[in-house]
Amino acid sequence: MVTSSAPGKVYLFGEHAVVYGEPAVPCAIERRVHVTATEIDEGLRIHANDLQLDGFTVEYTGDGESHPDVDVAESLVEAGMGYVNEAVAQARDAADAPEAGFEISVEGDIPLGAGLGSSAALVVAAIDAATRELGVELPASEIADRAYQVEHEVQDGQASRADTFCSAMGGAVRVEGNDCRRLDGIDTLPFVIGYDGGAGDTGALVAGVRTLRDEYDFAADTVAAIGDIVREGEAVLETGDYERLGELMDFNHGLLSALGVSSRSLDSMVWAARDADAHGAKLTGAGGGGCIVALDETDDALTALKYTPGCEDVFRAELDTDGVRQE
Amino acid sequence: MVTSSAPGKVYLFGEHAVVYGEPAVPCAIERRVHVTATEIDEGLRIHANDLQLDGFTVEYTGDGESHPDVDVAESLVEAGMGYVNEAVAQARDAADAPEAGFEISVEGDIPLGAGLGSSAALVVAAIDAATRELGVELPASEIADRAYQVEHEVQDGQASRADTFCSAMGGAVRVEGNDCRRLDGIDTLPFVIGYDGGAGDTGALVAGVRTLRDEYDFAADTVAAIGDIVREGEAVLETGDYERLGELMDFNHGLLSALGVSSRSLDSMVWAARDADAHGAKLTGAGGGGCIVALDETDDALTALKYTPGCEDVFRAELDTDGVRQE
Repeated sequence: MVTSSAPGKVYLFGEHAVVYGEPAVPCAIERRVHVTATEIDEGLRIHANDLQLDGFTVEYTGDGESHPDVDVAESLVEAGMGYVNEAVAQARDAADAPEAGFEISVEGDIPLGAGLGSSAALVVAAIDAATRELGVELPASEIADRAYQVEHEVQDGQASRADTFCSAMGGAVRVEGNDCRRLDGIDTLPFVIGYDGGAGDTGALVAGVRTLRDEYDFAADTVAAIGDIVREGEAVLETGDYERLGELMDFNHGLLSALGVSSRSLDSMVWAARDADAHGAKLTGAGGGGCIVALDETDDALTALKYTPGCEDVFRAELDTDGVRQE
Repeated sequence: MVTSSAPGKVYLFGEHAVVYGEPAVPCAIERRVHVTATEIDEGLRIHANDLQLDGFTVEYTGDGESHPDVDVAESLVEAGMGYVNEAVAQARDAADAPEAGFEISVEGDIPLGAGLGSSAALVVAAIDAATRELGVELPASEIADRAYQVEHEVQDGQASRADTFCSAMGGAVRVEGNDCRRLDGIDTLPFVIGYDGGAGDTGALVAGVRTLRDEYDFAADTVAAIGDIVREGEAVLETGDYERLGELMDFNHGLLSALGVSSRSLDSMVWAARDADAHGAKLTGAGGGGCIVALDETDDALTALKYTPGCEDVFRAELDTDGVRQE
């Protein structure tokens, strides 16, 4: 029995623009998914006890049918099952053990579907735990690559390398197309995350940006300006100047708003954090609902968000310099 | 005794960027300042009965001293006095009657200092009323020019031609540097205006944009993108396609947010209007507080704004195709 964990992430800069070849900077956060893998005779049993939803157990049997014992939205269960299923397939492939059976238990404290990279963390931790259980230790970069293959498969080719790479490697990373690398020397970033309890429709949001960008030159320029913010932000990151980082986050949020991917609750949370003197705040992820990330080393933004209508959950989540790891 | 009136305005597109030579499209609205001018023997008596503040009366006497009989913020009184004083000076100059005395009464239903062009409307209406009282009828274009001189004088050289030109000419106008012209064929635009009861510090907001623009290329690109929205918007205006106009207003608002000139209450009002299915909504004017303008021919945005916390006043104000006029 092996337990591995992997972190979720926020986008410090660059979501949406990254789709068009601009760089982005996702950062791993101190919120993790834990996956325990135990080799069994055959098949696959999945227990998800605390993915911020009611627990469920799924058993894959020899007849190829799955028998979920569930009390939650089927789409969420199927998504979770799909990720674990493909992650285990990657582990079997990596360990050259095609017939290996597994019992997989999942626990996590990352809100699901909130744009915090819960599925990438699940896949990364599952691949690591299952391969270790089979006696194989993969380098983080290979786990990142295999996890990307899983997301690519499960998400019908719509995956980005950003989430899986960030979760596997930890820290602040830079993603530009297929080129992913860790940004060295970034040890601490005081993130506060506000969550409105909802989630946007990622596909529709990405499509909306594409339509604007195709139709209007100024929208294409806005996407390019986000890329420039990322390049500026990389340089500022090295200096540890939170004031300027926050200024760039604020600007990035405005450009995302212009591209139509913010929402009433996201803007409300962003303003709550700014009015509480956070260095800066922006939505993180696809938008349309979900999470904002603020930069604040005090408790003020956290407290302000706690009392902001529409903010369902708020927590501090420092930059996590650890990626995937055995527990 | 002559009474003239002139309309306030909203920016459909382009505030802030207009400072850097980009075009802007202010639109006159059906909210007016009325000025009544009566020739008297000498000096200047000013009555302001309903400029959305308590009435005050100011008397200029031969000794060059003013004696305000007031119960309101001195800065507002002095500002109002300064505008009327200079407007009357323009009228005396235009009518070649340097010694003419006036009693001037001012009434208006435009919130003061809210970015709706109340001072420009006051100056335009005052010049028209005072010159007519002296038997001279100036063309609107000359009133616009003289009113600009007044704002330039009173505002220490910080005036834009946009407000005074728009108020004098009425309708939707296009301003680019010193080139101002009316956009023909635009007869109706269903504006709804929400007002948070406050006002930003125009000087600080303009300076903030300048600092960002000087420091970051992406901020300069954002200013340029606003100019592109204005050019696109001009073309869309001719088609009467409110859906696309609204889309451009939304985008314009996002870029203004990126430039740091929105506020919590402005964003809150913008979202209230959008969630009520307005075609689009944006802040209007310098920002930081003040007003938003939404495009909505139904009563939904109006009603939604009425019940939005932080919205102190909301009213419908159609495009006003009339500029300055004698009542």
